[in-house]
Amino acid sequence: MPNERYLAGTLREQHVKQTVNLKGWVQKRRDLGGLIFVDLRDRSGLVQIVFNPTISETALATAEKIRSEFVIEVTGEVVNRDKSTMNPKMETGNIEVVVEEITIINQAKNPPFQIQDDSDVAEDLRLKYRYLDLRREPMQETFKLRHKATQSIRSFLNAEEYLEMETPMLTKSTPEGARDYLVPSRVHPGHFYALPQSPQLFKQLLMVSGFERYFQFARCFRDEDLRADRQPEFTQIDIETSFMTSDDIMAMTERMMKKVMKDVKGLDIETPFKRMGYDEALERYGSDKPDTRFGMELVSVSEIVENSGFKVFSGAVSNGGKVSAINVKGEATNFSRKDIDHLTDFVKIYGAKGLAWLKMEQNELKGPISKFLSDQEVEALKSTLQVEEGDLLLFVADKTSVVYDSLGALRTNLGKKLQLIDESIFNFLWVTDWPLLEYDEELGRYFAAHHPFTMPATEDIDKLTSNPGEVKAQAYDLVLNGYELGGGSLRIYQREMQNKMFEVLGFTEEDAQEQFGFLLEALEYGAPPHGGIALGFDRFIMLLAGKTNLRDTILFPKTASASCLLTEAPGGVSTNQLDELHLAHKEKK
Amino acid sequence: MPNERYLAGTLREQHVKQTVNLKGWVQKRRDLGGLIFVDLRDRSGLVQIVFNPTISETALATAEKIRSEFVIEVTGEVVNRDKSTMNPKMETGNIEVVVEEITIINQAKNPPFQIQDDSDVAEDLRLKYRYLDLRREPMQETFKLRHKATQSIRSFLNAEEYLEMETPMLTKSTPEGARDYLVPSRVHPGHFYALPQSPQLFKQLLMVSGFERYFQFARCFRDEDLRADRQPEFTQIDIETSFMTSDDIMAMTERMMKKVMKDVKGLDIETPFKRMGYDEALERYGSDKPDTRFGMELVSVSEIVENSGFKVFSGAVSNGGKVSAINVKGEATNFSRKDIDHLTDFVKIYGAKGLAWLKMEQNELKGPISKFLSDQEVEALKSTLQVEEGDLLLFVADKTSVVYDSLGALRTNLGKKLQLIDESIFNFLWVTDWPLLEYDEELGRYFAAHHPFTMPATEDIDKLTSNPGEVKAQAYDLVLNGYELGGGSLRIYQREMQNKMFEVLGFTEEDAQEQFGFLLEALEYGAPPHGGIALGFDRFIMLLAGKTNLRDTILFPKTASASCLLTEAPGGVSTNQLDELHLAHKEKK
Repeated sequence: MPNERYLAGTLREQHVKQTVNLKGWVQKRRDLGGLIFVDLRDRSGLVQIVFNPTISETALATAEKIRSEFVIEVTGEVVNRDKSTMNPKMETGNIEVVVEEITIINQAKNPPFQIQDDSDVAEDLRLKYRYLDLRREPMQETFKLRHKATQSIRSFLNAEEYLEMETPMLTKSTPEGARDYLVPSRVHPGHFYALPQSPQLFKQLLMVSGFERYFQFARCFRDEDLRADRQPEFTQIDIETSFMTSDDIMAMTERMMKKVMKDVKGLDIETPFKRMGYDEALERYGSDKPDTRFGMELVSVSEIVENSGFKVFSGAVSNGGKVSAINVKGEATNFSRKDIDHLTDFVKIYGAKGLAWLKMEQNELKGPISKFLSDQEVEALKSTLQVEEGDLLLFVADKTSVVYDSLGALRTNLGKKLQLIDESIFNFLWVTDWPLLEYDEELGRYFAAHHPFTMPATEDIDKLTSNPGEVKAQAYDLVLNGYELGGGSLRIYQREMQNKMFEVLGFTEEDAQEQFGFLLEALEYGAPPHGGIALGFDRFIMLLAGKTNLRDTILFPKTASASCLLTEAPGGVSTNQLDELHLAHKEKK
Repeated sequence: MPNERYLAGTLREQHVKQTVNLKGWVQKRRDLGGLIFVDLRDRSGLVQIVFNPTISETALATAEKIRSEFVIEVTGEVVNRDKSTMNPKMETGNIEVVVEEITIINQAKNPPFQIQDDSDVAEDLRLKYRYLDLRREPMQETFKLRHKATQSIRSFLNAEEYLEMETPMLTKSTPEGARDYLVPSRVHPGHFYALPQSPQLFKQLLMVSGFERYFQFARCFRDEDLRADRQPEFTQIDIETSFMTSDDIMAMTERMMKKVMKDVKGLDIETPFKRMGYDEALERYGSDKPDTRFGMELVSVSEIVENSGFKVFSGAVSNGGKVSAINVKGEATNFSRKDIDHLTDFVKIYGAKGLAWLKMEQNELKGPISKFLSDQEVEALKSTLQVEEGDLLLFVADKTSVVYDSLGALRTNLGKKLQLIDESIFNFLWVTDWPLLEYDEELGRYFAAHHPFTMPATEDIDKLTSNPGEVKAQAYDLVLNGYELGGGSLRIYQREMQNKMFEVLGFTEEDAQEQFGFLLEALEYGAPPHGGIALGFDRFIMLLAGKTNLRDTILFPKTASASCLLTEAPGGVSTNQLDELHLAHKEKK
């Protein structure tokens, strides 16, 4: 078979009469009227090949042995199909290849599931046979898209003079932040490396080194209990730069996103992205990562009901909490009491004690709580919530955080259920003016809302000691369609400020020195003002590919218990291996 | 200071009369005749800025406070320098910036060493203050070169339709190969992940998945005792492809190298690269990674001296070893007995028992051993070794492997010492026809010379059981200037062959299943013929940048004891962290 290899999916009418050599997999075999038809698949797609005894009996005889997923090589002539047998669903559907020679390169057992686009196979089986799952076209497409996005981002950052730089994976464990994956040292008994949760400190040190513009597709690790959208190892687009303002960094990110969306999705997205303060995001959407593709915003009605006869409302306000509502437009008649009971169960997951409701029917707000509301309150609600005939109002009265969490989640839930969301839209949003610190009631201390290296808002610096909870950060999160894509900040670049920050976080001087001494020292040798951003690449690909499962964007993902079903990692190791690491098993107490 | 920032190193005469804003570091300050001159450094390079009291007394007063490595911002006018003060060594040496305004952005303590091009500072200090070491221009240049090489390779592979794909870091430990870094699992007590020594199995599985063309800049890990040119974590350009021959893969690699050398070094290198069999490389250079930039090849003289009266020679041959020599052209008079004693000590490091020598003086081969050699032997040596007046001949007689190791090392050593090497040359070389297996005398079993997935040479497959030591592999190493850049092979793609390979390596069926079951199974579902290559990227950069220390090509390298002197990793962890991992310290026995 002397001919150069052609790719199956690229054959078109222009190739008719050419003899081509193809190598690939048997997608499907059909025997029909003494002929054998095979859909041959390679990385480029599919083409139909035909075995015809008048062309080659030998080839036909071999074809009789092939089954799905066999690897074969064929040589044959490209011919036009009859009009009647053309397949407009296939890109190569106007032609077929009449096989003159065939070689079976490798055989295949019957696969545990069909290699087809739609798969309702249990995910565990897909993960165990990941190499077969990855043969499915939607998976192939996702990883081609991922490659394309990678190259697009790299080419953008390269053009803007960012240097791609590799920071270490064997780093130092710091108790601040999420739980580290540890790596025992053989050479230093009792000592451990940690896999990086992010290259944060290294990229800051690179700014101290004067590189000014850094990026990396950085593998990061967190040993946390996993949810559907978390993986123990993940990839982030990690960027750091010197001498730029927050606005500069946000504008750079916007240019990058504009290019990726164009390169990968062919979309022209609008920049600059909208910006919203953290407080406003919570008030209007009950979320710090609002999905702004639809309305149904939260509206505070605390002022209307603070003296209401309905004690659940007035009590929440007088206890320092609040009452907010969403107006589910025109859905009054579509939600039965039972439906609303389900919604009540839903908000309870988020800590709400209940869900009050009113329906606008015959120009009257009706519902179990209506009798407790004064005419004035009713009128104020109608006007504030812009109520029209047929609207359904849903209220949560509680601690402020519970109101936001539960009503925000309910809004998202209803938005999906009522199909209020245009799935073709990509709504980027900056959430800004984050609090610098969060108070942990249980541990009785402040924690960094982002990380301890975030620069406080200039105008709030005085409050760092007197009122830390009110200090805002020079931080910005990028939100896409209700998902946090990532975030960034300006960093502290002066030792005194970093000392102060550790003090506020309850570090003793020794603790700070022990854990972050090298950073503190680096800030004394001419550190430039710097800042950056880190974007979750897996999640970004998930959104670009229109997936809902993060595992579909990672070649060999782990399960919720952090296992690889294919390789059976993690696995046992020999006593000898443990001895070398000066470690012994210890039974769980 | 309203102006857009300019980069210091980009200012030229065309900017004269423009007002520019600069931000960067104080490289050097000189006070001269009431003026202050500062070399201002940013990522682009240096420019001289001048503080002149007739322009701004305030700016001059501030300038009096600045010291080396302060971070400053200045605004001023670009002016021509007087002819007499032009500095042709600086790219910006024809101009300077007369400062109107200055702000001190950040101060700097006196650095522990000068930030200058040449540094004779102890490496430990450089590593502790790596962020300062990285400010030095040669370091900045190395990492710019590394970035450039990365982009060049990516753009090449992208154009050849390779997909960049990310394989896991938390993988399964396999005892075959080097020592793994282990990562204890919190969720699965007593179980461990391993950091990958290479993505070998995953890239093979990606071929089984039908992606056909994969690449990755892959971080790899080996917990081995470190030599100067090894690091516990390193980066390799990892490539795998389906349906290609060895020649295809070598040709692709050559195209890639041709592009990188052009993009990064501006050099047109010749392709295809020369190829040499493994056996020939050892015979001629005593090395499987020969430096072919100079001659002084090893010449076997076993046949000449096998019956010699010099028993060291004849004995080596009759014991199954050999005698080889190098001809150090024209150096007879330059090497005293003492010098030769030093060379003898050198070859002893490699296991040689001694170094015999002869000098061609007055047309006679003279030396302590000459009296044992017959006239015939002398004449044969003269002709075989092409001896001329003034030549020095050095012989090692020993086990074959000792002859190659010691004389090969001596050749390289003398090549450098005698400056026989043109350092401007990049000599790429393929070493092919590797043995598939190596016998370990101590353990009494064969080990894979590359890895257990390498395809045996087709013509040797029959010998796998009968004579495994003679089986060649379908493997190829790429050598550059005496360094192994990396290597690759075609892989086994049929289960029976892989089973057989494990059998030859002494695996029981259970062992093979336990460790590599998922691979064996994958080979049964239509695995395509595949192969690839992996190139050590750090080492490649080292050679491109003309460095001799691998640590100079890695931003934050580890020491020989695998420590990071900057962050002090590895470090201690809390008992609580160990408890969560179900581990306890165990004293070394």
